[in-house]
Amino acid sequence: MLKVPPHQVAGHEAVDGKLGPLVDESGRFYKPLQDDERGSNEVAFYSSLSTNSGIPEHIRRFFPTFYGTQLIEASDGSGLKPHLVLEDLARGQVNPSIMDVKIGSRTWAPEVSQKYVEKCLKKDRESSSLPLGFRISGLQIFRNKELGFWKPGKKAAQKLSTEEVKLVLRRFVSSNTLNDLDLEPDCGLASTVYGGSAGILSQLLELKAWFEDQTIYHFYACSILLVFEKELALEGRNPNAQIKLIDFAHVNEGRGVIDHNFLGGLCSLIKFVSEILTAPNEYKTEVSAKDGQKNLINTDNGVVADQENLINSGNGVVADQKNLTNAVNGVS
Amino acid sequence: MLKVPPHQVAGHEAVDGKLGPLVDESGRFYKPLQDDERGSNEVAFYSSLSTNSGIPEHIRRFFPTFYGTQLIEASDGSGLKPHLVLEDLARGQVNPSIMDVKIGSRTWAPEVSQKYVEKCLKKDRESSSLPLGFRISGLQIFRNKELGFWKPGKKAAQKLSTEEVKLVLRRFVSSNTLNDLDLEPDCGLASTVYGGSAGILSQLLELKAWFEDQTIYHFYACSILLVFEKELALEGRNPNAQIKLIDFAHVNEGRGVIDHNFLGGLCSLIKFVSEILTAPNEYKTEVSAKDGQKNLINTDNGVVADQENLINSGNGVVADQKNLTNAVNGVS
Repeated sequence: MLKVPPHQVAGHEAVDGKLGPLVDESGRFYKPLQDDERGSNEVAFYSSLSTNSGIPEHIRRFFPTFYGTQLIEASDGSGLKPHLVLEDLARGQVNPSIMDVKIGSRTWAPEVSQKYVEKCLKKDRESSSLPLGFRISGLQIFRNKELGFWKPGKKAAQKLSTEEVKLVLRRFVSSNTLNDLDLEPDCGLASTVYGGSAGILSQLLELKAWFEDQTIYHFYACSILLVFEKELALEGRNPNAQIKLIDFAHVNEGRGVIDHNFLGGLCSLIKFVSEILTAPNEYKTEVSAKDGQKNLINTDNGVVADQENLINSGNGVVADQKNLTNAVNGVS
Repeated sequence: MLKVPPHQVAGHEAVDGKLGPLVDESGRFYKPLQDDERGSNEVAFYSSLSTNSGIPEHIRRFFPTFYGTQLIEASDGSGLKPHLVLEDLARGQVNPSIMDVKIGSRTWAPEVSQKYVEKCLKKDRESSSLPLGFRISGLQIFRNKELGFWKPGKKAAQKLSTEEVKLVLRRFVSSNTLNDLDLEPDCGLASTVYGGSAGILSQLLELKAWFEDQTIYHFYACSILLVFEKELALEGRNPNAQIKLIDFAHVNEGRGVIDHNFLGGLCSLIKFVSEILTAPNEYKTEVSAKDGQKNLINTDNGVVADQENLINSGNGVVADQKNLTNAVNGVS
């Protein structure tokens, strides 16, 4: 029985009669192949990755398992369509906190058309990609069973300022930010989720070491997904913090050159995460609240869009609407 | 007594009645301040650097010493003009091999005008900046006393392909490539110049470690100069291999974000240099000669421009013209 993924934070969603990914009970994720070359590119990448003996095992685990392609009924009712069959990364998770971070200040490869450059460059300049080297494409942070998730609008998330990104990365690993955007995040889970030998920072550093050396692939417009279970962390148990690379429609051959664009953005993300671990209590309030959070607060569009997404996504709607109301109230 | 710098490889040159930098006997380098904001930006940067206590000493040595600004007679005869007074980096060098590497796949800051973006982006796309994360803005490689320097055209140098850049970085530390572009470089000086605890790779790695952490400055369109004395290396003496950062007309404040654009390009350069040290004899000839060296060979424009520069530069002209003739002959 296929259904809409309950924890999708970015990308096209299979709601409202639209085309989007589906999941099944056995832990597989079905992503519709895009009609144009993006679809064939992504299949080619996964196939290449499966057979490339040059990818070390400790790096291979950062990619979703690939089970080939399959014709299944598309979510938009358009009939049988080819889908990538992948590992469902949220499989087995109860209430995962998830962040989708699109890496790289440039989301386009050098040899694409001028028209495509202009389209991407506009998005890169309007989002945080250009200044920060990455943008948050979407996120959900679990609050508690009653309140559900905090899930800001995707458009708002992409345009976060430096201070706002710092704030969101702190909120992601905090236990006290349930209701009030003005409250300083306590970063109470930072050492468990970001820190430690199995934590997110350690995984990001492993990935970085590979990117300093590998010249096989260039990952344009690819994301790192950060996932963990807050409830487990709060109980002092292993929160299964992990990173996964996703979205390979724009992967190119490296041809003897490292992916300096991805690496630069990755190092920028690493710096932000490291700062939280080094100084979890040092959130600078000088640019906080109204100034620092404009994209998280004054985002009527973002919020409306988000509410639409949430309303149509079936699960946890009431709780999520509450979140949004609280988020807006928190600053009025 | 001011004169034209004998070893300039990139940038505006004070020849043919043009405005360019001058040097004196005491080891100072006078760089004319550009009239627009670039001039004031560069002064502001050097002033900020001098007084910023956050720059570690082992990093400070990678910047030219700054002696303030001074009004001197401009090289184009336009009268007194303000000049930056800097350390002459070629001071005391007899026949330095020099490479000017402009770092970063993007040479423009996020907040500049659309018009300026388009101008820079065109250059970045037409040069190796976009694919490699850096471009060689100019270079000279000492051959011997009779032949002088090998100094390919600046325009040609900027557009080198991946394989050509690998070749030039090998030629830079080779002792056998005196006459023939087809000859495989022996990389005989690689371990002395690139390697070792005081070598260029070691310095690049120190710089990299700083760039992974520092959020003070973003260095757009800035270069790393690689310099050493080949004759000393050939005699088994310390070749004074060093790197220096130059050209700060487009430095911005970092505002809490690392310079991911510079860092990515720097890591790309480091990867190329590391490969030479790891496998000095593994130059792949598959793309060499005609295919791999098209920008170093079929560059009539580059060569003509270069000859002009050399003819007017006063010193070592005859030797240099010979070089160029040999370079062209080498493939005809």
